[in-house]
Amino acid sequence: MMKSLSPEMIVEASTVRFDSLSLDSGANLSPVEVAYETYGTLNTAKTNAILVLHAFSGDAHAAGISHETGKPGWWDNMIGPGKAFDTDRYFVICSNVLGGCRGTTGPSSINPAIGCPFAMSFPVITIADMVRLQRMLIDWFGIPRLLAVSGGSMGGMQALEWAVAHPDRVVTAIPIATTTRHSAQQIAFNEVGRQAIMGDPDWSEGNYYGKQLPGRGLAVARMVGHITYMSDESMREKFGRRLRGKENFSFGFDVDFEVESYLRYRGSQFVGRFDANSYLYITKAMDYFDLTGGAASLAAALERATCRFLVISFSSDWLYPSYQSQELVRALRSRNRDVAYVELQSNYGHDSFLVDVAEQTDLVRGFLASTFEKLS
Amino acid sequence: MMKSLSPEMIVEASTVRFDSLSLDSGANLSPVEVAYETYGTLNTAKTNAILVLHAFSGDAHAAGISHETGKPGWWDNMIGPGKAFDTDRYFVICSNVLGGCRGTTGPSSINPAIGCPFAMSFPVITIADMVRLQRMLIDWFGIPRLLAVSGGSMGGMQALEWAVAHPDRVVTAIPIATTTRHSAQQIAFNEVGRQAIMGDPDWSEGNYYGKQLPGRGLAVARMVGHITYMSDESMREKFGRRLRGKENFSFGFDVDFEVESYLRYRGSQFVGRFDANSYLYITKAMDYFDLTGGAASLAAALERATCRFLVISFSSDWLYPSYQSQELVRALRSRNRDVAYVELQSNYGHDSFLVDVAEQTDLVRGFLASTFEKLS
Repeated sequence: MMKSLSPEMIVEASTVRFDSLSLDSGANLSPVEVAYETYGTLNTAKTNAILVLHAFSGDAHAAGISHETGKPGWWDNMIGPGKAFDTDRYFVICSNVLGGCRGTTGPSSINPAIGCPFAMSFPVITIADMVRLQRMLIDWFGIPRLLAVSGGSMGGMQALEWAVAHPDRVVTAIPIATTTRHSAQQIAFNEVGRQAIMGDPDWSEGNYYGKQLPGRGLAVARMVGHITYMSDESMREKFGRRLRGKENFSFGFDVDFEVESYLRYRGSQFVGRFDANSYLYITKAMDYFDLTGGAASLAAALERATCRFLVISFSSDWLYPSYQSQELVRALRSRNRDVAYVELQSNYGHDSFLVDVAEQTDLVRGFLASTFEKLS
Repeated sequence: MMKSLSPEMIVEASTVRFDSLSLDSGANLSPVEVAYETYGTLNTAKTNAILVLHAFSGDAHAAGISHETGKPGWWDNMIGPGKAFDTDRYFVICSNVLGGCRGTTGPSSINPAIGCPFAMSFPVITIADMVRLQRMLIDWFGIPRLLAVSGGSMGGMQALEWAVAHPDRVVTAIPIATTTRHSAQQIAFNEVGRQAIMGDPDWSEGNYYGKQLPGRGLAVARMVGHITYMSDESMREKFGRRLRGKENFSFGFDVDFEVESYLRYRGSQFVGRFDANSYLYITKAMDYFDLTGGAASLAAALERATCRFLVISFSSDWLYPSYQSQELVRALRSRNRDVAYVELQSNYGHDSFLVDVAEQTDLVRGFLASTFEKLS
């Protein structure tokens, strides 16, 4: 059982602005803003800082209760007093990614050169660009080395990029339910989402700000996403073939099944909270990500990474299957890197890293404690 | 190795019209037309007829070279002289399903009451309705009992429905890569496709005939479908992360990866050959299908089925996973029914029943021959 939220842990996002950021594409963003939240207290030696990295549709609000929305953070069951990322011991930072739509500069931000949103004039970004901006934030905090970088899914990609691109700044990395590069199937699912959005006439080449949003396309994209986040088994348990508020089929095209109702609801809800252009840019960054980069092999690329690793995958995750984590682990071991790997048994599919956190908590808590105690 | 096409096997679809068809919904279609093709020769005892049943987007053109299009049939590697369904021995029939758009009455057909296409005034149909119409076709041929009913995916559902609803008319059933009822995940993927179509403004509540087709929505629906028909592994082998006609990322939203190009092509190609409203009606029929019906259990429902069964599934098929076929087999065995089951090892995912047919051919050939020899 997880501890319940401390009622006093009301949090608010802050924003910091930097003069400029150079991108992998060769473009430059100037200025660039980052929204972040922190939980816990930075010690005087600045050795207890952990950067938590969000997944595709997440944001800086990882824990506590948002002052603005009253909602708990996306990893609130993992971050807090006595939890996996124990805020009694550690100082936890989470920032919205570059290209996002929750306070960090992205396609919906105002382009100062024209006084209007960037829309599709926003430069294409990469996971490495996201991490570059995070490093500027960590520099701004004056933190020489992060005790840990950790996240699931796209958050795990960022953790891996940190470990390889900035090895001197990371003591441990905890990539969860992730991959060193997208497979054809993962690219394909992202491409379906992009085509759904770009095929919506309201998308208007990205210039929909202040007008009708491309809500139908974005909702369809999100529906596909939700199917891939769950497992066949968890969907069977949650919905089965149950009908929605009726005893018989409608013999029409309104909602018949509970699962249809759920997907439609999740799709329409997403339209209110996520920017369609951010969907395009962030999925593209995930598809481009390839930790091997210009190296001869994944193992060769990982030679640069000197931190300790804890790699976690989930048995029912078919979107980021365990074999992808195992590929990472083999490559690290082939270079004699310090890596622990656990495949957790869970029925929740890719969502497991967000919802099925009891064992994950034990793993992360022990791993962090053993590392932190050696440092102190 | 399969025999190559006999150059002389040029085929043409025929159409037969019936006065009326009563549907599960209570509605009545009057008149109703069925497009069909046949291969081989019906013997004088009429004991060598096999009804082959197509999957979601298939049609009556199962084998040979179409006189009209010059294209081979969808199961041409399984039907022909010396093939699994050996046209030197058997008389093979395939008809387009009710609700389809390739010659059989469906939403794009003219509603005689109004002189315009039915569009969404077409009644909602079921797998049982499809089979009812097929039975009328078999009656019209004067065939008392079918040596076999066989098909993959939705074709397998029809084979199962035949076995249960018309047990006196079927000697054997060969359901392949199918299920006795859709899971929540299967319904969910269909619902995404429907929402993509119905969310396209060109869908116009289904009244797009003679106007702009809802091509963007239909293409997205088809893209999702194609991902579910392939396996993670077959996509990796076929596409991997290969770029399309370039050496580096575009840093834009045009096609970067081969897999994106493939999906876009398949999506747009589908728009030219398939009716969006048929997509809605046929997926709905699949989602409604539940062989258990009003019975106490699947096994109880299968008590009516007295034919021999050959059940085939494929190891890498995650859309119609083997456990669904195994559920069917357990239920049949619990009622002491004559059932053979094989899970074939294949990397092609759900598409295996269409493309990886060497072992499938041996299985079907032997099963049919042993049954047919006992009859003769």
